[in-house]
Amino acid sequence: MSSGNLRVTGGPLWAGPGMFWPSGAVLASDGVVVYAGDAALAPPLPEASELDADGGLIMPGLINAHCHAAMVLFRGLADDLPLDAWLNQHIFPAEARWVDERMTEVCTRLAVAEMLLSGTTTVGDSYFCASGAARAYEQTGMRAVLAQGLIDFPAPGVPDPAQGLAVCREFVERWSGVSPLITPAIFAHSPYTCSPRTLGEAAALREDLGVRLYTHLAETASEVAQSAETHGASPVAWLDELGLLQRLDAAVHCVWLAEGEAELLAQRGVAVIACPGSNSKLGSGWADIPTMLADGCVVGLGTDGAASNNNLDLFGEIGLAARLAKLRTGDPASLPAEQAVDLALAGSAAALGLEEKVGRLEPGFACDLIVMDLSAPRLTPLYDAPSHLTYAASGNEVRHTVVDGQVLVKDRQLTCLDLDQAMASVRELAARVAGG
Amino acid sequence: MSSGNLRVTGGPLWAGPGMFWPSGAVLASDGVVVYAGDAALAPPLPEASELDADGGLIMPGLINAHCHAAMVLFRGLADDLPLDAWLNQHIFPAEARWVDERMTEVCTRLAVAEMLLSGTTTVGDSYFCASGAARAYEQTGMRAVLAQGLIDFPAPGVPDPAQGLAVCREFVERWSGVSPLITPAIFAHSPYTCSPRTLGEAAALREDLGVRLYTHLAETASEVAQSAETHGASPVAWLDELGLLQRLDAAVHCVWLAEGEAELLAQRGVAVIACPGSNSKLGSGWADIPTMLADGCVVGLGTDGAASNNNLDLFGEIGLAARLAKLRTGDPASLPAEQAVDLALAGSAAALGLEEKVGRLEPGFACDLIVMDLSAPRLTPLYDAPSHLTYAASGNEVRHTVVDGQVLVKDRQLTCLDLDQAMASVRELAARVAGG
Repeated sequence: MSSGNLRVTGGPLWAGPGMFWPSGAVLASDGVVVYAGDAALAPPLPEASELDADGGLIMPGLINAHCHAAMVLFRGLADDLPLDAWLNQHIFPAEARWVDERMTEVCTRLAVAEMLLSGTTTVGDSYFCASGAARAYEQTGMRAVLAQGLIDFPAPGVPDPAQGLAVCREFVERWSGVSPLITPAIFAHSPYTCSPRTLGEAAALREDLGVRLYTHLAETASEVAQSAETHGASPVAWLDELGLLQRLDAAVHCVWLAEGEAELLAQRGVAVIACPGSNSKLGSGWADIPTMLADGCVVGLGTDGAASNNNLDLFGEIGLAARLAKLRTGDPASLPAEQAVDLALAGSAAALGLEEKVGRLEPGFACDLIVMDLSAPRLTPLYDAPSHLTYAASGNEVRHTVVDGQVLVKDRQLTCLDLDQAMASVRELAARVAGG
Repeated sequence: MSSGNLRVTGGPLWAGPGMFWPSGAVLASDGVVVYAGDAALAPPLPEASELDADGGLIMPGLINAHCHAAMVLFRGLADDLPLDAWLNQHIFPAEARWVDERMTEVCTRLAVAEMLLSGTTTVGDSYFCASGAARAYEQTGMRAVLAQGLIDFPAPGVPDPAQGLAVCREFVERWSGVSPLITPAIFAHSPYTCSPRTLGEAAALREDLGVRLYTHLAETASEVAQSAETHGASPVAWLDELGLLQRLDAAVHCVWLAEGEAELLAQRGVAVIACPGSNSKLGSGWADIPTMLADGCVVGLGTDGAASNNNLDLFGEIGLAARLAKLRTGDPASLPAEQAVDLALAGSAAALGLEEKVGRLEPGFACDLIVMDLSAPRLTPLYDAPSHLTYAASGNEVRHTVVDGQVLVKDRQLTCLDLDQAMASVRELAARVAGG
């Protein structure tokens, strides 16, 4: 937990849907918000550091609910390919060859830089060799729900799949309680790459350790067709038959849900994490977010890894989610701006189990906030802040980023890591990847 | 025409599809490219100004083929509304009240700033009170194909629709030959707001004056349904029946084409200008770009106005076009990166009739180029430039912008206008708009 007092003033405050003050203030003590609202009504806060928004918009930091952060190494390595060729001829071989704990530490550091600079303060990161990534989060002070991957094939750091559960347990035990900003978790890759036995053991481990369990689910039409052929049921229905659906915390993608399955996910307490940038780039399809929300689902937003996106700018996902919702329904009123932004706030927070900690700027919440530069041409003039956040802004308008009361980006400069060095390390690895 | 010599070196050069040099140089004399290629093979160029790419990617400036630039005043004024309510209750009344030549001059200046800073060097701008916009282009040195609007209703600057043709003629004559960077044109709003007589007279004026004629076409499903009801034909078929299709130069939107109509447009020599950001935000649908290209259409890209987008960053349109193509076909190989970028280069250039002048960096083409900062985290590492341009970049990575051999943006700063003043003027107008 961060020590000391912080006062952020000097600009409008949008603290979440319906919570706007033209002149706002956020006060935090030891990393926790003690006041958020009208600057004129803010109580005194002794010995506080000051962060001046300088006319910029103060708002909660964004939450990227699903990412494979270290995959920035493979950004743009292979695009515009059929999914099978992309995965089997490019990504899986590159992962097998290049992913180890040093790679995940080095590459996650660059991902952290990209995310903090573009306004993301919390990430749900799922990957192999997760201890390397954990070190990157620990060093930089970004908030992460970090899941060790589990799959029924030899994987980076887990050459013997029979050791997968043990590696997950070891990772969770190693990183539990190390930092209040790092929450270890488990990521079982998917129902088509993990047997029912593996999934059941992962669920048991989840309950034994009290951690969250995630999986990719219903990402592609061919996954659904294959599930129907193999199991006589859709991936969602099949997990439900196995009694496993209710033991999942969140399902990533959910592009291909059958009718009623959004409702079933809601009933089973499974959050959905939509990744519109990745799903569209891979030609997989699009999650029906308006229906999911109408059916009571918790829906968060993720960028997915940079190999399938190809950036980690969550503002792009917010805008794309809103546009795709309108395209799906033909109704421009679908997924309006404030609701779209909130997917990456309360929605993502709940998908990560952090709904009482992040996603809002209210007393008791963590002081995770960003300041958006409103003097950018693309944000001029300003009539309505959520509209700009959804339809006009990008992560490049982020000026300051605060996590747990610590200013990690100030005036667009990272205070928590050496960006040039982070990029140079990844370029060095990339030169080897390109060399084959 | 710009005088003097310019040498741009110090980074890789992507001069168009298939034209990449790891260390490139572009040499220009009096605003015209005289060499583009390998830096090591560049001829001497006496007394040249030097522009250092400092490791950034040198590439052709982007071409925004359809915009209503001055509408930046209405950016975010009204969103997430049904199209009718948006247009009739918000945008049309606001235009009637606030648009005049001073407004278009002031607001187009901000649009120019936004476009130059995000890498657009040429714009196809269609609006009313176009002389105001022309002054903004003349003052700043941005390249524009600028069309005066024509519609069968009272419009800003044209209270009597019977004067519409005369206003178009006057505008074209006033701005012909004033600047080699400004090409006057005519924009007949649409077949549902212009009678066949108006459209026919516009076509006659086009031929009389030797200028280009544009129109919105097949933007929404309701437009197509209404056309079927009124004329017994789709908008495209109806214009063809009237003999007007072949007298059009480009049709904007073309979201709802019947089978065979893309081919018909190609046969009639009508380019298509797709606006995926606007069409998706308004819930109108999406143009089928892969089919259009397969059918031989020229396809350019536009942002449309900022009231329906809501920014003028053409990189966003490139990425969205590529993603929507893959979603439509379910095939991630649809509209691959290099082809997507080229929509905003050769495609837009041809849609504006400038295919021999802009969209490529080759001897004889205008020296309209940008330098993209490759040291941004989101562009690191770099395996393939077009991939980054399509899937990872935004206009915020633009570092230098050159039009006609003149450096209009250097190190992210406008050299051709006072940005603070441009924003302040628009904010002042916006305060009055918001006041009602």
